[in-house]
Amino acid sequence: MLGLMQDQPLLISSLLTHAERYHPRSEIVSVTCEGETVRSSWGQLARRARQAAQALLAMGVKPGDRVATLAWNTHRHLELYYAAAGIGAVLHTVNPRLFPEQIEYILNHGGAEVLLFDLPFLGLVDGLAGKIPNIRHQVVLTDAAHLPEGRDTLASYETLIAAEDGTLVWPRFDERSASGLCYTSGTTGNPKGVLYSHRSTVLHAFLCCQVDGLHLSRDDSTLLAVPLFHVNAWGIPYASAMCGAKLVLPGPKLDGESLFSLAVAEECTFSLGVPTVWLGLFKYLDEAGIDVQRLPFQRVLIGGSAAPRALLQRFHDAGVHAFQAWGMSETSPVATVAALLPHHRDLPKSDQIDVLARQGRAMFGVELKIVAEDGSELPQDGSVSGELMVRGPWVTSGYYGGVGGQVVDADGWFATGDVAKIDSEGFVTLTDRSKDVIKSGGEWISSIELENAALGHPAVEAAAVVGVTHERWQERPLMLVIRKPGSAAEPQEILDFLADKVARWWLPDALVFVDTLPLTATGKLDKKVLRAAWKDHLVGA
Amino acid sequence: MLGLMQDQPLLISSLLTHAERYHPRSEIVSVTCEGETVRSSWGQLARRARQAAQALLAMGVKPGDRVATLAWNTHRHLELYYAAAGIGAVLHTVNPRLFPEQIEYILNHGGAEVLLFDLPFLGLVDGLAGKIPNIRHQVVLTDAAHLPEGRDTLASYETLIAAEDGTLVWPRFDERSASGLCYTSGTTGNPKGVLYSHRSTVLHAFLCCQVDGLHLSRDDSTLLAVPLFHVNAWGIPYASAMCGAKLVLPGPKLDGESLFSLAVAEECTFSLGVPTVWLGLFKYLDEAGIDVQRLPFQRVLIGGSAAPRALLQRFHDAGVHAFQAWGMSETSPVATVAALLPHHRDLPKSDQIDVLARQGRAMFGVELKIVAEDGSELPQDGSVSGELMVRGPWVTSGYYGGVGGQVVDADGWFATGDVAKIDSEGFVTLTDRSKDVIKSGGEWISSIELENAALGHPAVEAAAVVGVTHERWQERPLMLVIRKPGSAAEPQEILDFLADKVARWWLPDALVFVDTLPLTATGKLDKKVLRAAWKDHLVGA
Ligand SMILES: Nc1ncnc2c1ncn2[C@@H]1O[C@H](COP(=O)(O)OP(=O)(O)OP(=O)(O)O)[C@@H](O)[C@H]1O
Ligand SMILES: Nc1ncnc2c1ncn2[C@@H]1O[C@H](COP(=O)(O)OP(=O)(O)OP(=O)(O)O)[C@@H](O)[C@H]1O
Ligand SMILES: [Mg+2]
Ligand SMILES: [Mg+2]
Repeated sequence: MLGLMQDQPLLISSLLTHAERYHPRSEIVSVTCEGETVRSSWGQLARRARQAAQALLAMGVKPGDRVATLAWNTHRHLELYYAAAGIGAVLHTVNPRLFPEQIEYILNHGGAEVLLFDLPFLGLVDGLAGKIPNIRHQVVLTDAAHLPEGRDTLASYETLIAAEDGTLVWPRFDERSASGLCYTSGTTGNPKGVLYSHRSTVLHAFLCCQVDGLHLSRDDSTLLAVPLFHVNAWGIPYASAMCGAKLVLPGPKLDGESLFSLAVAEECTFSLGVPTVWLGLFKYLDEAGIDVQRLPFQRVLIGGSAAPRALLQRFHDAGVHAFQAWGMSETSPVATVAALLPHHRDLPKSDQIDVLARQGRAMFGVELKIVAEDGSELPQDGSVSGELMVRGPWVTSGYYGGVGGQVVDADGWFATGDVAKIDSEGFVTLTDRSKDVIKSGGEWISSIELENAALGHPAVEAAAVVGVTHERWQERPLMLVIRKPGSAAEPQEILDFLADKVARWWLPDALVFVDTLPLTATGKLDKKVLRAAWKDHLVGA
Repeated sequence: MLGLMQDQPLLISSLLTHAERYHPRSEIVSVTCEGETVRSSWGQLARRARQAAQALLAMGVKPGDRVATLAWNTHRHLELYYAAAGIGAVLHTVNPRLFPEQIEYILNHGGAEVLLFDLPFLGLVDGLAGKIPNIRHQVVLTDAAHLPEGRDTLASYETLIAAEDGTLVWPRFDERSASGLCYTSGTTGNPKGVLYSHRSTVLHAFLCCQVDGLHLSRDDSTLLAVPLFHVNAWGIPYASAMCGAKLVLPGPKLDGESLFSLAVAEECTFSLGVPTVWLGLFKYLDEAGIDVQRLPFQRVLIGGSAAPRALLQRFHDAGVHAFQAWGMSETSPVATVAALLPHHRDLPKSDQIDVLARQGRAMFGVELKIVAEDGSELPQDGSVSGELMVRGPWVTSGYYGGVGGQVVDADGWFATGDVAKIDSEGFVTLTDRSKDVIKSGGEWISSIELENAALGHPAVEAAAVVGVTHERWQERPLMLVIRKPGSAAEPQEILDFLADKVARWWLPDALVFVDTLPLTATGKLDKKVLRAAWKDHLVGA
């Protein structure tokens, strides 16, 4: 017997309609690629999103069509989030930091006919001329004044939407309809597209607004230091409309100085981003001699890769509640959130940070388990590690176009490719990505734990550990370290420092100082590149 | 094109499974009808709920079957919330405060074959012997020791569940399946059944856990002063599992002394209930000479009928953030929540309380409008009032068994029977229920505003205003007042007090002191009874 409650779909357009009605004056502050700071509000954004939707319709965009973007965090990009999804189209955000060949692959695979991009990406798009044949419309996210001369095929976004009256009424449709498409960066094989739905997006927004979730509320001013092209900017664009939070969009500038001054100017209470961004912020504060107490944040969410303990410590020393969440493109992304439990309240601060340095516990709606290589379920006892499996209404069931085939098992579990322990309280500790795991004589060594330990040494600015070929143990850990400017520490000193922090047989066989470490397009250590470069270090080329 | 996210249903059993895994030691404290205080936890509750589910299955309960309860707030009743819904049956909570004829009607209309009830209701159930022919199983929510002798047809709940091993695995099914049934008290005509679904229930739980919703979190210890038989106890049984909050169930005792001592003993941070309950609490504190600062609550939600401003003020004076929400059985119930907006922060406390004394603003998911008698939409300008219409995924689309016919219009709007103004910011102010509105010479007078104003007078303990027959104006307001013990105020003094608080022509034509005011089974003023008793007061019988 079915219940008799209304069959109202969970639609992304409802989030915007809600924000327009109940939070019209809540601000949207946007730094554009032209360098202007544009101040608007959810009320204005809602109207402009309708105009943008009308402009998309005028270009012939139909329900289910993909609409591609190559753009930074600005109000225009945010408008497109709502405009495209609102008319039943699919916003396909493409990461402009990828290599042109990857962008070409992703655009062609996604199949959008409309591409909207920021002016700085004009060269990139021009370079793809002739290689992205689906694209019928190229729109630059700028106004007529900034549009380059003599480029008839380029339209200006501001000109297009100015021609529309904003009277569109958002259509209603099945909440399972596709709303967004985002390709994983492809550190393994070709990038694969995750196709979100209205339902998954709205449910995920509820998670963000939960007290014990991301705690997003009307009182927040959020500095969005995670790009809109990276997994829905972790759901914040949607959740902010749900609760009417102020949103601060930093545009192309994610350097420490830009983020700090924007955060101060806009009195940001909350921010979120990958560890690299925060390391950059503290580097700037240190170099500029700025007191970290001036950081206005109350909360900072660190995700995308393991939050170094030392980073969490720095935030907490500055009075900022930094915490970690785990997720992936395939999980919308938030799946776990680290939070103190009541019995942690009386612990010394440093032990509390240990808790927050773990990847957290599953939020309601997300089910987790770990399995052995043969697929059998492993105990969640905090010591055994295995591949993390995830299930839930905002977890993918397959990739766009069927790429990768069947990716969930018969019971609906998705294999994350992450290796983790789960303790009796449900805290997940990610030890590695399965492709990065170091297999020494058949036993696993966690590169994340080694890196985390090294980052506790005052001379270490960044550290990466990869498995390299070893004659006796097949693979052994090699640690690559960027030293802090001015430090004269020797490799052995850092290895000695690690000695009482990890198992003896985990200690890297070598530690090499490097000037830079390669990052992926989402700001993570690119271990594929490192492994290729260093694989023969212990055996000789 | 559909998205590719997992098709995982939103099920009530998932809430419990989540709580069992992630919050097993979070407490459930229950005062039983036998007077014991039983301390358990979400972990224990989950196991017992599975045992209870097995017991229901053993009695032949099948998906879609109704399972009826006549019970107070205890862990056993809470277990049944999950046990019944978990196996796809429908928990039919019946309000034991109703008249026996109404209970008979509701049980027969609901059609349950199993009735579970607290021991104090044995007399009530015995009185219905022969009149509730569907009921095949009568289970007393107690243990064997408390079961009356020689009653072969009665089973003890504890005995039944002790026979089960708790190994049941919750089945998966369509999230739109019916999960609960609750009849409105029927102040107009026969009671009507609202049939909730798993989907509506889980979505509503998300609302409760939102920062700007009811702000329920893992850190809360909630004193549930709203009965489990009253609209899902406002969603708290589900939301508490979602976030793992501690739950304190006061059993049959909702008097001021019992609530206060329980709140103090269990360090309750949050509570919720109808105004009558809170008036009782303060009456007790005053009479016992207890300092209101000893109330441990951080937040108190007042709903079910208009929260008197004076009551909110008392809570705030005691350092408790009391606030109001509006809803009804037909809306699961929470639809609006009153919260301060950023621009209210700098207002004097008293003005802030004015904000919180309104019924609040729609939460995401809930759409509201007001309409004129001809159904045309009215402006939301804070001055025009009309019938409140509501729409959303946790709003009913019709009553159980089709009673009342088509209750939503072609666009899906449900007519609430409440009369309200909505201001430009979206704040709803309920002026009356349409059946209680006083029509004086064709103009409407708000009984709620008059009552609220009267409650500001120090001599007024309770006040009710009803429209009574008037020769010239068809209807005029009559105010009935219970004076505070020891007060010697005269009627005219109170009328004078009102003079500058409401429009001149709203002033009641008469004010009569009474010893008691009749309440409905949900603790609201019973104006149907009052109108019948007083209708000829101004014209003479
Ligand atoms: N808090 C965290 N701690 C450790 N690792 C994390 C955390 N959050 C995310 N990750 C890592 O990031 C991954 C998800 O990243 P995402 O899907 O956005 O792109 P990617 O996995 O880096 O790209 P690709 O799948 O193409 O390699 C997770 O599978 C996990 O390995
Ligand atoms: N915060 C509030 N302020 C004023 N009135 C409220 C508030 N919350 C609820 N109400 C009143 O309570 C009603 C909902 O109550 P509910 O559906 O639980 O039973 P009932 O309406 O009293 O019973 P019946 O429909 O049989 O008369 C609303 O329609 C409204 O009139
Ligand atoms: Mg990945
Ligand atoms: Mg009602």
